[in-house]
Parts: sequence; structure tokens; C-alpha cells
Amino acid sequence: MSVTGPLGFVAAGVACGIKAAGQLDLALVATDDGTAVPAAGVFTANRAAAPSVQLSRRHLVATGGRAAAVVLSSGNANAATGARGMHDVEAMCAATAAGLGAMTEEVLVAQTGLIGIPLPVGPLGSGIPVLLDARSGSRQAAADAATAIMTTDTVRKEVLVEGEGFRVGAMAKGAAMLEPSMATMLAVLTTDAQVGDAQVGDTLLGDLLRHSVEGSFNRMTVDGCMSTNDTVLVLASGRSGVAPGAGALAEALGEACQQLAASMAADAEGATKVAHVVVEGAVSDDEAHRAARKVAGSLLVKCSLNGEDPYWGRVVSELGSAGVGFELDRVQVSYGGVAVCRAGVSVEHDAAAVRRHMAGRSITITCGLGIGAGRAAVLTTDLGHGYIDENRGTS
Amino acid sequence: MSVTGPLGFVAAGVACGIKAAGQLDLALVATDDGTAVPAAGVFTANRAAAPSVQLSRRHLVATGGRAAAVVLSSGNANAATGARGMHDVEAMCAATAAGLGAMTEEVLVAQTGLIGIPLPVGPLGSGIPVLLDARSGSRQAAADAATAIMTTDTVRKEVLVEGEGFRVGAMAKGAAMLEPSMATMLAVLTTDAQVGDAQVGDTLLGDLLRHSVEGSFNRMTVDGCMSTNDTVLVLASGRSGVAPGAGALAEALGEACQQLAASMAADAEGATKVAHVVVEGAVSDDEAHRAARKVAGSLLVKCSLNGEDPYWGRVVSELGSAGVGFELDRVQVSYGGVAVCRAGVSVEHDAAAVRRHMAGRSITITCGLGIGAGRAAVLTTDLGHGYIDENRGTS
Repeated sequence: MSVTGPLGFVAAGVACGIKAAGQLDLALVATDDGTAVPAAGVFTANRAAAPSVQLSRRHLVATGGRAAAVVLSSGNANAATGARGMHDVEAMCAATAAGLGAMTEEVLVAQTGLIGIPLPVGPLGSGIPVLLDARSGSRQAAADAATAIMTTDTVRKEVLVEGEGFRVGAMAKGAAMLEPSMATMLAVLTTDAQVGDAQVGDTLLGDLLRHSVEGSFNRMTVDGCMSTNDTVLVLASGRSGVAPGAGALAEALGEACQQLAASMAADAEGATKVAHVVVEGAVSDDEAHRAARKVAGSLLVKCSLNGEDPYWGRVVSELGSAGVGFELDRVQVSYGGVAVCRAGVSVEHDAAAVRRHMAGRSITITCGLGIGAGRAAVLTTDLGHGYIDENRGTS
Repeated sequence: MSVTGPLGFVAAGVACGIKAAGQLDLALVATDDGTAVPAAGVFTANRAAAPSVQLSRRHLVATGGRAAAVVLSSGNANAATGARGMHDVEAMCAATAAGLGAMTEEVLVAQTGLIGIPLPVGPLGSGIPVLLDARSGSRQAAADAATAIMTTDTVRKEVLVEGEGFRVGAMAKGAAMLEPSMATMLAVLTTDAQVGDAQVGDTLLGDLLRHSVEGSFNRMTVDGCMSTNDTVLVLASGRSGVAPGAGALAEALGEACQQLAASMAADAEGATKVAHVVVEGAVSDDEAHRAARKVAGSLLVKCSLNGEDPYWGRVVSELGSAGVGFELDRVQVSYGGVAVCRAGVSVEHDAAAVRRHMAGRSITITCGLGIGAGRAAVLTTDLGHGYIDENRGTS
């Protein structure tokens, strides 16, 4: 069900002609009656942020954190397109708002695709009325919307999480450039939880969302690139009649984001493996996170995952250059729970068990630093020919 | 000639059995009479630094910056090998010193190869007398030494620079892991310039070397990994009788390092292209360097070099997320001098000229930020199947 699972939402996905061959490329998530509800967003930190990001930020400020709809398109990022790019997203929001009977500022927008190429407005202009006509609260409508935001994704990414009397539904796209902050990914979350004026107890809805993003999308790394268009949005209809505490809502939002992050990593461009890099025993959680990210982002480690090679020397070398507290003679490295390095040197181990673990699709590398209680985990992928083949050309 | 080009030096390269098939794997650079001369070193910042790095640092401190020889081996990094690893390099230095009639502290050591595997001492023990017997001031001896330090290098890296009345010779190995500081690379420089007590005018020889490294090896990036074993050493025999000023010596050392860096980038594992990423118009040189490094290190940009695809959107996205002063509407991007993006948007250009430039082995990407006078250049390589094939397994 994803975004139409929570009460009070409709969705749609249609083809408007950005992508060739009539693939779905225009999506909508909206309240079923066109009214604006509490909403929040987390956006890329890239200073070359696309017009869609700039305009969504501006709209959330203008409304004080309310939205009636999100309109999304794929196949063209409409980034680095100057004044024309901004004019085009304003027109998209205005047309969507007019069709819903909402104000333009109550419509948010997200786009993904190639950078530097102006948006073909013609098809988008005629696409929006078709999109609005297609909106429905059905499972299929949600699936169409999730399909319409895919780029190099090979699977649709949808999730529905049950809270205590409320639900969180979400869809996302994202297969490449996952890192360091959010990286070419779009996600829209809906919930029927009751949220007062964009606020849950003492906590802003935006802060809850940021926390969820921090613990999920920001804990994975595929290639270290941060996109111009990264956007995560949440709309809360309140239609369940249940007003959860900040903790319960945070948990449900976090669970939804984590499930989406895992499916993104699994579907990362050209990846054949997903690896969980866990660092324990660091001076602090923050240092553990930095060390885990250094290992997870290492091209050499990622190549060795592709080759199913448990070469722990590379892992130790990355830990040693992560800029965190580190004493070589305390370091332990395990693959799938089998220690291959203890006290900074090689140890006898069950090599067959390690080989079996590396041959699987999911690999766990656990690094013990032995100097504190800090712990963190980062998701990563292997680096193989497939990644290069997907990214060496745009045409 | 390389390291035996400057007066007063001998070299040798032999096979001691670390590498299979009798390949050269043990090298020597020494003063021709075994006396210690002014010397300095720059080493990896990796906290998992190998015993060779720890011991060379310690020896330079003990002698106050003098050395009679450098002994180097390839095929095994002897890193993460604990107390035994340290014992082994101490024995290498002691055996070399005994043969030369020098003190153990006057011998420096450098190693490169796989991490975490103890050094086969037996062959090294019998190899050192053979190495010492083979030493000579000939061109061939220098070539043998340069060959004996190669790992995945496909070409020997030697250089000889003529100063005003003095010379700088150098050899290096390094093909992978070039960055962020020095990364699996070894270099030995020799000069017959006169250098007072490890000092040139008011400048320490070590500071001159560090400056040269900063402007060469530290200005390239292949995969962002920093090795446990990176070492750059210089020995100054004084035998030319000429005592250049700090500026003249810095220039010659810098020239030697830059030539070596260029040949390393050209020979980087699996690379088919070398790219010069130039950033101009940044707020400062330091910001220009950070931005250039971000672009140069981007997997997506590196894949696009491999595919000869001038997709400038990726370049702009990296510049925008480099954490430096950036205004999209002032950005210009050129490939081979042909502007493809101006004022942050696409411009009409000679696409055929860009295609021809991208098809060459050497590519120049120039990024103008348009907000200051800061400028920097970083060398990088493409990312293709070859890199992965070289790095996916160690066996």
C-alpha cells in the first residue's frame, strides 16, 4: 500500500513524456480532499541544490509547515538550469495546486534524473491534468507513483509500517550516489497520525524526520556523491484520530526510513553485495561512525567485497587513516562473526566459514577498536563492473 | 640514471624470494662509501603505520637527520604483523649496516605489498649480502633498484633533474591507493647538493621535502586510500661541491616529485585516462584544492572519464557539495578548454571538439567558481573495469 496505506491520501503515477518509450515519469501524493496538512522536509546540503529543492524549502517556510500534495518527476533533475528551471517547477506546483483547489505554496515538488538539461515543459504541462485525474487511494495508484519516480532503480521501493493506532506509508527511489548525506534519493512518507501544528509534543515534525533520516539514509554509502536533488518529505493527515507521542511516531518513521534504506542499498547501481560495516569499541559513537564510514566508503574494501576476498589488511588500513582514536595492537576484525585479526595481527580461523560468508549476498564486517564503548554501523555495497557500466555514460 | 645520477650514490636490486618466480624484490640506495649524509623523510599519517615507517622515523630522530642507506623490499608490506614485524625490519637494517660499515640507525627502510602477513625472513636474511655485493653506481643498478620496488606498477619510475651545478635523482613505486595523503607509494630521492646539517639556509631539508611532497604526490587522487607504508626519503651526499639556496633545491626536488607523481597517475592500477582537474576563482587556494579534490575523487566523475562522457552536471554537483564557497550562477566548466557550462547553465559549444578531447589519454577539466582568486589542480584517473579486476582479490 505504501503512501496510500495511511488514511486520507491519494496517489497517482503517469507518463508525461520526459522518459522515452512512455515509461511512467510523473507522480503525485496528495491529501484526498486537497486540504493542507502538517508537513516537513529534509533536503540535500549541496550548494548546487536544484530548483525543486529550493522551491519546496520556500513553500514549507511560507506555509509554516503544511502541504496538500507533492508532485514528483523522474528522468530530468532540472538542476543547473538557471531561471528557466525555477520557472518550470513553479509552473508545476501552480498547475497541481489549481487542480486540487489548493494554494501553490501548499504543493511541494521533487525531481530526479540528469543534471543541466532544461525540463521539457510541454509534456509536463499536459501531464499534470492527466496525473490529477488518475489520483486514487488504491494500492495500484501508490505503486504507480512509486514506479514513476524510479530512474536506474530495478525494483519499486514501498513500505507500510503499523504504529499503535496509526500508520506510516512511504515510497522512495534511489539506487546511486547514496552518500554522504542523502544522495540522489527521493522519499515521500505519509502518516495518518495526528500531529498538532507541525509539532509532536515538544518536538517539531521536521526534527523527527531529520532524526529518522540520520539513522537510515545517512547511514549508508554507495559512492560518496551527494546529489543536487535529494529530498525526503512527510505529510501527516491526522485521519486516524490517534495522536502518538514523539517517541512512537519517531519509531514508526525511523522504521519506514530504515526499510527503504536497506532496499536502496540492495538495489544500488551495479551492486551484487550489501555489507554492514560495524565499528565497536571506539572512543565515541561519533568516532565509530566516522571509522565505519571510512571503511564502508573505501574503494579497495568495496572491490574486495566484489571479489569475496576477506583481505582484512585493507580494513585495518582504513581504520588507521579514519582520523579517530586507534591503537593497532587492540584491533579486531571479523567477517560474519569469524575473527581474522586479533590484537592487530592475523589469527588462525575457519577460512572455509569466512569464504561461505563472503559468498553470500549480505556480508558483515565487524571492527573492534578496543579502546571505548562507541558503536556505529554503516551500510555499503560492493564495487564491480556493473557500477561502472551504469555510470560511464549518460547517453 | 635516477638515484645513481647524483655523485656519491650506489644502488642495487636483487631477488630475495618474497615474490614468486624470482622477480626482483629487494633494493638498496646507499652512499658509495657507506658514510652517513644529511637525510629526511615524509611518512604516512596512517595510525596503522607499518614497522618500516616507525623504524625509519625513529632512526632519523636518533641520528639527527643522517643516513647512509635505504633498504627497500616489495611484495609484503610487513604491516599489522606485531612485534615480529618490528623485529624483522630491525634485522634488515642491522644486516645492511653491518655490510656497509655503518651504524644500524644510519639505515632507513621501506616496504610495500600485502598487509597482515609476516615477512619471510629467511630469504631476506640471505638476500641482503647478495644485495650489498650487487651495489654499483651504474645506470643499470639504479634501474634494478627501481624495478625491485614495483608491485602492480607496469612501468619503472625513475627521474633525474639537473639543478644549477647539482642533481636530484629519484625512483618511486606507486600505482594504487594514491591519496589522500601519500598512499601506497615509496620514493627515494638522492642529491649531490651540499646541505649543511640537514639544513638548507634557514630551512630544514625535511621541510623542503614535505613541501615537494605537498605539491606533487599529495595533489593526486586515485582511490582515496592512504597506505600503512607510504614513505618518501631524500639523502644528500654534498659531492657536487655546490650548496644551492633553499629555493633552488626546493625547485629541483619539487620537479623530481612532480615528474614521479605524473608517471604514477599515468600508471595507476587499471587506469586508461589521466585527468587534470583545475579549480579557479575559488575564495582561496585551499578552497580551490578542496573543491578540485572533491571532483577528482568522485566515483561518478571518474566513471564518466572512463566512458569519455563530458557530463558536467556531475562536476557541478561535486563542486556544490565540496563545502567551499559556491554560487551556482557563477560557475563555468570546460573540458579541454571548451566551455560546456557558463553561469551555471548549459551553453552551446563545439561538441565534436569536446569528444576529441575526451577520447585522448589526458583530459583537462577546468572549473571556474567566479568568486575569488584561489586556484589549485589535482591529478586523477578514470575508473574502469581494470581497477576492479586488479583489486577484487589478493590471491
